[in-house]
Amino acid sequence: MGGGAAAIPDSLAACRRLDQADPLAALSRRFRLPAGGVYLDGNSLGPLPRGAEAAVRRATAQEWGRSLVGGWNADDWIGLPARTAARIAPLIGAAPDEVACADSVSVNLFKLAAGALALRPGRRVILMAEDEFPTDGYMLQGLARLRQDICIRRVPADGLSETLSADVALVVLSHAHYRTGALADLPGLTARAAGAGVLTLWDLSHTAGLAPVGLDAAGADMAVGCGYKYLNGGPGAPAFAFLARRHHAAFENPLAGWMGHARPFDFAPDYIPAAGAARLMAGTPPVLSLTALHAALELFEGLDPEGLLERSRRLSDLFLARAAPTLEAHGFRCVSPARREARGGHLAFAHPHAYPVVQALIAEGVTGDFRAPDLMRLGFSPLFLGRADVWAAADRFARVMETGAWRDPAFSEKQRVT
Amino acid sequence: MGGGAAAIPDSLAACRRLDQADPLAALSRRFRLPAGGVYLDGNSLGPLPRGAEAAVRRATAQEWGRSLVGGWNADDWIGLPARTAARIAPLIGAAPDEVACADSVSVNLFKLAAGALALRPGRRVILMAEDEFPTDGYMLQGLARLRQDICIRRVPADGLSETLSADVALVVLSHAHYRTGALADLPGLTARAAGAGVLTLWDLSHTAGLAPVGLDAAGADMAVGCGYKYLNGGPGAPAFAFLARRHHAAFENPLAGWMGHARPFDFAPDYIPAAGAARLMAGTPPVLSLTALHAALELFEGLDPEGLLERSRRLSDLFLARAAPTLEAHGFRCVSPARREARGGHLAFAHPHAYPVVQALIAEGVTGDFRAPDLMRLGFSPLFLGRADVWAAADRFARVMETGAWRDPAFSEKQRVT
Repeated sequence: MGGGAAAIPDSLAACRRLDQADPLAALSRRFRLPAGGVYLDGNSLGPLPRGAEAAVRRATAQEWGRSLVGGWNADDWIGLPARTAARIAPLIGAAPDEVACADSVSVNLFKLAAGALALRPGRRVILMAEDEFPTDGYMLQGLARLRQDICIRRVPADGLSETLSADVALVVLSHAHYRTGALADLPGLTARAAGAGVLTLWDLSHTAGLAPVGLDAAGADMAVGCGYKYLNGGPGAPAFAFLARRHHAAFENPLAGWMGHARPFDFAPDYIPAAGAARLMAGTPPVLSLTALHAALELFEGLDPEGLLERSRRLSDLFLARAAPTLEAHGFRCVSPARREARGGHLAFAHPHAYPVVQALIAEGVTGDFRAPDLMRLGFSPLFLGRADVWAAADRFARVMETGAWRDPAFSEKQRVT
Repeated sequence: MGGGAAAIPDSLAACRRLDQADPLAALSRRFRLPAGGVYLDGNSLGPLPRGAEAAVRRATAQEWGRSLVGGWNADDWIGLPARTAARIAPLIGAAPDEVACADSVSVNLFKLAAGALALRPGRRVILMAEDEFPTDGYMLQGLARLRQDICIRRVPADGLSETLSADVALVVLSHAHYRTGALADLPGLTARAAGAGVLTLWDLSHTAGLAPVGLDAAGADMAVGCGYKYLNGGPGAPAFAFLARRHHAAFENPLAGWMGHARPFDFAPDYIPAAGAARLMAGTPPVLSLTALHAALELFEGLDPEGLLERSRRLSDLFLARAAPTLEAHGFRCVSPARREARGGHLAFAHPHAYPVVQALIAEGVTGDFRAPDLMRLGFSPLFLGRADVWAAADRFARVMETGAWRDPAFSEKQRVT
């Protein structure tokens, strides 16, 4: 699990030998995976953990079906958000009371950004990278329309550090970029922001469950993250929000719903925030979806995020090596960082025909995704993929390009893809 | 199904005869219900429809498990919120494009209230009843802290009409009160508010799926409602929001997430709202929980909300008649409206020992709930309860009171109840 590039296997047999010797490889059996397929889209939607399937069945038939409303107590639905948050906390380097599990990434970003403005009165600018994941920008635009006295300043990602001026309340940035997978310098930017009195809000959607995040070690202020990518919590799984303990007392959640109340079942007329990050909750959580996420997180027990990232990078190293001739021959340009230390969990390749190529790959059982206008994005999730899978994916990619299978008109029409 | 109190059956045999002749009675077989129990808490959490159980199993094992990320297209997860909203629309007297299914009641209330202020510039007051469901008030307080220039004015519910002054932008009111079940005069207050230039935001949590609401007929502006009470969508099911068509073009959702974007998969840097109420969506919906709600709504196909409310009232009439001696002998005071026309789907009774009485009833298989400080709340859901159930519940209530079973110390300790 040590750093640095390990030797890259040079045959399918070597891949299989390494997989067999890899203690993490056994984890793939805890997922339902497509037979014969290679799923390189766990960075968009993680596959189904068998434990999550069983937990959802139980939550439906037994808990809802038999406990009925008593499930809030008998099955501890009321404690489910906190129990889920407690499983996420170690993956992002946070304490359990600094994490809440609730709502969506978008909604949590709004809560935190709005609260950040109140923590930095007089500062009216929220800074963000201009190529940030769009919904993060939309939410900030919505906040700016509501507040009217604030503004969103967008700058190139590499110019954020130089733009931390005295009017900036908050800087919002993805830890890993949704297109390129490039890892931002979380500790560095956090420290520079803190030095300028600027709060940091990290979007961990593409790193939670993949990479060490180390929020507390870096002194980060806030973060949001996604439950359905590397955490494998299921489609639209609830998201999470992190708030550093030093901000707990002063932080005001504008979405002050009853689940974030200190005593929700008192039905008191006035809002009194719960202690800790629990005040980031709003309305009643979607228990079935939350149950899936909670169960999926069991897979991470005892795992070291550093080891997961290294494993993912070995898989992407292997793909880059094995697919290099195809990539070069067919004019794919890797837009992900060349330095493996700067790489997150996925690789993206620009190509004028990325869309039909991705469709042809899917038809060959290799699921990646397309990101407009011209990116083929392939994810190397460390929990369920092995070297033999990646070897097979590179081979099928070569076949799709060499046979021209991607030119089939069936692959040409654009359709909705997430 | 006509109005007016029908003859109340005077024996268990008569109850059974009427149940057998009742075409709606067959619906109860489409739920999983506790054997031998009587569930009078469908107003808090509806029971499990068998169709929802099957749909969740399929969405987990087949859709997530086999389609993986392809489920957004192959299983039309992307269309699931709109398909769910389209099933809710006729139950509340709205057009499908006026309803969005997303987030929680609390979060939807925030979106609509914030948007209402922008529709009524210069008016800075949100009016609400002082005994409104607490989380509705909390959310408005959160909005007021964020905006700072607005204020929340709380008045007695029967004084709302007289308080519709020129500084009021919005009035927020529950259609049926969460404690008493009393129905507000939705058309009357809506008309008076409109006359004063005030927008209306109705909380339908305790009427959607129980009673005719008639939002469009009344000219209502906005509404929110709950997916897990009378709609039986499962614990924490996604909520819905209604926005009258005349406001679509001008309405701005402050929680401007990508699912409410006109073209979410363009990943464009700027937010462009979707047409219609779809702009009320924010982040990615919790697909498993939403699937349960969508399937549960199938039960309402072809049902007339007027008939449902009448059926519920016949059940509560029966309880009141059959339980009258017990209620009187033991000092229970009904806080629900005496006039059946003013009654929603539940009855509430004040009693100094309401807490242990409710616990003793639960131990007898009759599930109601306790609302602090002193209310026993019993719900009469029209979809799965029959007259024989209500007869049995009244009998067990009599036994609990006459035997003093509620004095058992096991029932005395307060615990969390939703």
